[in-house]
Amino acid sequence: LIRVCVVGAAGRMGSESVRALSAGSEFQVVAAIDSSAAGRRLSEVAGVSSDVVVSPSLDSVEGCDVLLEFTHAESATEHAVFAAMRGVAPVIGASGLSSSQQREVADACKKGGVGGILVPNFAIGAVLMMRFAAEAAKWLPNAEVIEMHHDKKLDAPSGTGIRTAELISEARKSTRNPDPTKVVKFEGARGALVDDVPVHSVRLPGLVAHQTVMFGGEGEVLKLHHDSMNRLSFMEGVKLAVHRVRELDSYVVGLDALMF
Amino acid sequence: LIRVCVVGAAGRMGSESVRALSAGSEFQVVAAIDSSAAGRRLSEVAGVSSDVVVSPSLDSVEGCDVLLEFTHAESATEHAVFAAMRGVAPVIGASGLSSSQQREVADACKKGGVGGILVPNFAIGAVLMMRFAAEAAKWLPNAEVIEMHHDKKLDAPSGTGIRTAELISEARKSTRNPDPTKVVKFEGARGALVDDVPVHSVRLPGLVAHQTVMFGGEGEVLKLHHDSMNRLSFMEGVKLAVHRVRELDSYVVGLDALMF
Amino acid sequence: LIRVCVVGAAGRMGSESVRALSAGSEFQVVAAIDSSAAGRRLSEVAGVSSDVVVSPSLDSVEGCDVLLEFTHAESATEHAVFAAMRGVAPVIGASGLSSSQQREVADACKKGGVGGILVPNFAIGAVLMMRFAAEAAKWLPNAEVIEMHHDKKLDAPSGTGIRTAELISEARKSTRNPDPTKVVKFEGARGALVDDVPVHSVRLPGLVAHQTVMFGGEGEVLKLHHDSMNRLSFMEGVKLAVHRVRELDSYVVGLDALMF
Amino acid sequence: LIRVCVVGAAGRMGSESVRALSAGSEFQVVAAIDSSAAGRRLSEVAGVSSDVVVSPSLDSVEGCDVLLEFTHAESATEHAVFAAMRGVAPVIGASGLSSSQQREVADACKKGGVGGILVPNFAIGAVLMMRFAAEAAKWLPNAEVIEMHHDKKLDAPSGTGIRTAELISEARKSTRNPDPTKVVKFEGARGALVDDVPVHSVRLPGLVAHQTVMFGGEGEVLKLHHDSMNRLSFMEGVKLAVHRVRELDSYVVGLDALMF
Repeated sequence: LIRVCVVGAAGRMGSESVRALSAGSEFQVVAAIDSSAAGRRLSEVAGVSSDVVVSPSLDSVEGCDVLLEFTHAESATEHAVFAAMRGVAPVIGASGLSSSQQREVADACKKGGVGGILVPNFAIGAVLMMRFAAEAAKWLPNAEVIEMHHDKKLDAPSGTGIRTAELISEARKSTRNPDPTKVVKFEGARGALVDDVPVHSVRLPGLVAHQTVMFGGEGEVLKLHHDSMNRLSFMEGVKLAVHRVRELDSYVVGLDALMF
Repeated sequence: LIRVCVVGAAGRMGSESVRALSAGSEFQVVAAIDSSAAGRRLSEVAGVSSDVVVSPSLDSVEGCDVLLEFTHAESATEHAVFAAMRGVAPVIGASGLSSSQQREVADACKKGGVGGILVPNFAIGAVLMMRFAAEAAKWLPNAEVIEMHHDKKLDAPSGTGIRTAELISEARKSTRNPDPTKVVKFEGARGALVDDVPVHSVRLPGLVAHQTVMFGGEGEVLKLHHDSMNRLSFMEGVKLAVHRVRELDSYVVGLDALMF
Repeated sequence: LIRVCVVGAAGRMGSESVRALSAGSEFQVVAAIDSSAAGRRLSEVAGVSSDVVVSPSLDSVEGCDVLLEFTHAESATEHAVFAAMRGVAPVIGASGLSSSQQREVADACKKGGVGGILVPNFAIGAVLMMRFAAEAAKWLPNAEVIEMHHDKKLDAPSGTGIRTAELISEARKSTRNPDPTKVVKFEGARGALVDDVPVHSVRLPGLVAHQTVMFGGEGEVLKLHHDSMNRLSFMEGVKLAVHRVRELDSYVVGLDALMF
Repeated sequence: LIRVCVVGAAGRMGSESVRALSAGSEFQVVAAIDSSAAGRRLSEVAGVSSDVVVSPSLDSVEGCDVLLEFTHAESATEHAVFAAMRGVAPVIGASGLSSSQQREVADACKKGGVGGILVPNFAIGAVLMMRFAAEAAKWLPNAEVIEMHHDKKLDAPSGTGIRTAELISEARKSTRNPDPTKVVKFEGARGALVDDVPVHSVRLPGLVAHQTVMFGGEGEVLKLHHDSMNRLSFMEGVKLAVHRVRELDSYVVGLDALMF
């Protein structure tokens, strides 16, 4: 039984994680922190059977094996350091940690003698897609990325689209064939160049979060495609991280560090 | 039996058409014109069983029912007018005819009392895709076009991509939802705007000629997709045009004029 | 302003429809019927701002323009007849009405001098996909259907998959090319034959409700694809039906009767 | 410079390989064997600039580094053994070698002190797809295979489809979720079960050789897709095998043995 403290327990990812971790017998949510829901019962906040009362702040990690963090970069760093120094392994789902913040967490893990992990994307299928894209780029260096999201998404390209292009660019030995396009009849047709990989962003109502990575070789095409339909797609990854972070002996980045 | 004169008979589309028209018993290629193959036998030029000898120029259309034209805009206009004035219906596969050239052909058809047709795209599946795109746009006005071609194609977007965007724009009553994108991290990510429809062009080795049209509505997505694998995809359309042009009583544009 | 009475107002489709119809200023839900929620306020049942109290049964349609029905075949028939006889146009979303039940509704519409409609599928994109499939089959008679659903769906093929195959079969003049398969190494590989159209059913967690219809011609392939992500995909169709049923002068089947 | 002897040089794969190997400066085709083209010049048989004359049988491998074999199982075994015993590494593209024939080749490679390879599929993209499918199955054990081919293909499922299903089955630890289907309205809808993995075979004109592998998890779907447009898709794999077989120190099966 792995005893987990969830920080940001009343938020979307936090409450979904509380439910996912409470569903089986492998995990137990023994503490929950959320300033916006302090004093309320976890049963009410996340709809699970539990006596835990939500605390306003992280004052102790006693009795916890793992800290699961879903607040913002600054507080996530602080909480992760606090936990790691006391021998509790941090799993950080917050985004936007700077490299110096990450170094702080890494140092604390070292001192506390525990593993730790920062997870930019908890969807196992998306992690596989990126991993395979990097592998394929070694053999089929000509690639383009098409990422497709709902019409509420404000930024383009998506973080996953940019990261995929970077991974392709790092992995391929040769540079890509030059773009054949000589006549651009309408500006922007050939997409955005991210590390020399064209990335195209589609935005339509009805879409959720999808991505296709296309590789072309002589006489053949390889496509990797991922659909993320809802937040449930992250829960297998959350459970994997909470389960395996304790087998690590240092701080790592990305779910793939636990998978391959 | 429909007797056909093929102009540009030694070219790619011309020789393929000679083969397609010679395969059944519905058509007979009774004359072939091509300055680059004058004097050679059609059997040699197109690999069919035939006694026809290729002529250097179009001097007569006697004994022909239909003229099939695969040269360039100027000569195609001249040949089509010549044929139409003599009661022979022209099918024009050449591209780039100006509106005044098209008017000349239309007038000649009227005077000659025959139908005539200009066909920008002979692939029946591509014509259906464009037709359906226009129909769908009436109901699902949010649309984007992704066209994908081999890495030898010099221009972007493709002619079919542009034409599809124009058709969508004409068909939808309401204008499209505004683009949600507020932060463009890499220029060009959202594609080219053609009549307010985003068009994305992918260029990779291994691809031939493909297009996806995506429509998004609340909770649903509709996709129309066409693959053109090789020049054979045009032959059903060539046969359809040669067969039905004689049922027309005036000059029209586009294979769909014969289909719906 | 169209005044609507919703029967089955506390069910999934009913409450979603109450919300959709209450969102703009075009419709007003003036009565709600549901035996399982009798006496409760609509505001509570469907989360909308409304004073309407849910009735246990349909005793009057006074003050209504349209009756929207989401119960089962027998009661839906009874309610639709009751409404139509009193000049209120019925929109039936219930499934499984027999032909004699449908005749009863049609007769009542005639006597009451109103239109009426039975809608098996409210998703506009799905209706378009089926319409286009029938149209495409006239030109490209070789077709296969791949329908993909979540792993909770008990039956295969899906109703939409079967209906699409029937429409393709009716529309194509020539019969399909014979199946080339001579050696079946594993039974079932070539799918189910529905009116001579192969239908393949995929069942996986993560999927919602999707369908691809593939047409093959010489050198080309045309694909029609629809994704239904959630119940919201039906709401445009509900609003369309409620809006336009009053322009009909008799009973019809299928949303496409209002669209083309 | 790697000196290659091509057996079956006048066949489809053989002559295509001769052209591919002759295109750069890395390889030289120094001998060609083909009983059906004995005595003809390679320049004529494969359209390359070369003085080599095609021999009727394999009598010597002197001056060769690699033997590339495209005949049938029995003669391929014989030729590979002959070459390996003389220190020439065999690359076998022939299909259908029995396990005892493969053992003979492996033994000869050992005795001759050379590597050797049997390659069932030379398309690098297809090899990647299968590799990724096996990897993904460890994490997302619910999978189905859809393979799509032209309407001249006589057998179903395809060899690649069957092999992919086997790889998925071997790789996944847990068994797949049970099939939810309780009501099969038309027999065959759920495809063929190959090692408990559903495989669906689509056959249509216009298709060439394509495959989609779909994996479903909670709230997400991962798809791997490969298109093989023509025989050129095999040439990169042929060159890779000929290039790297000499770095092997024993007999192996599958291009992936050289790739990962």
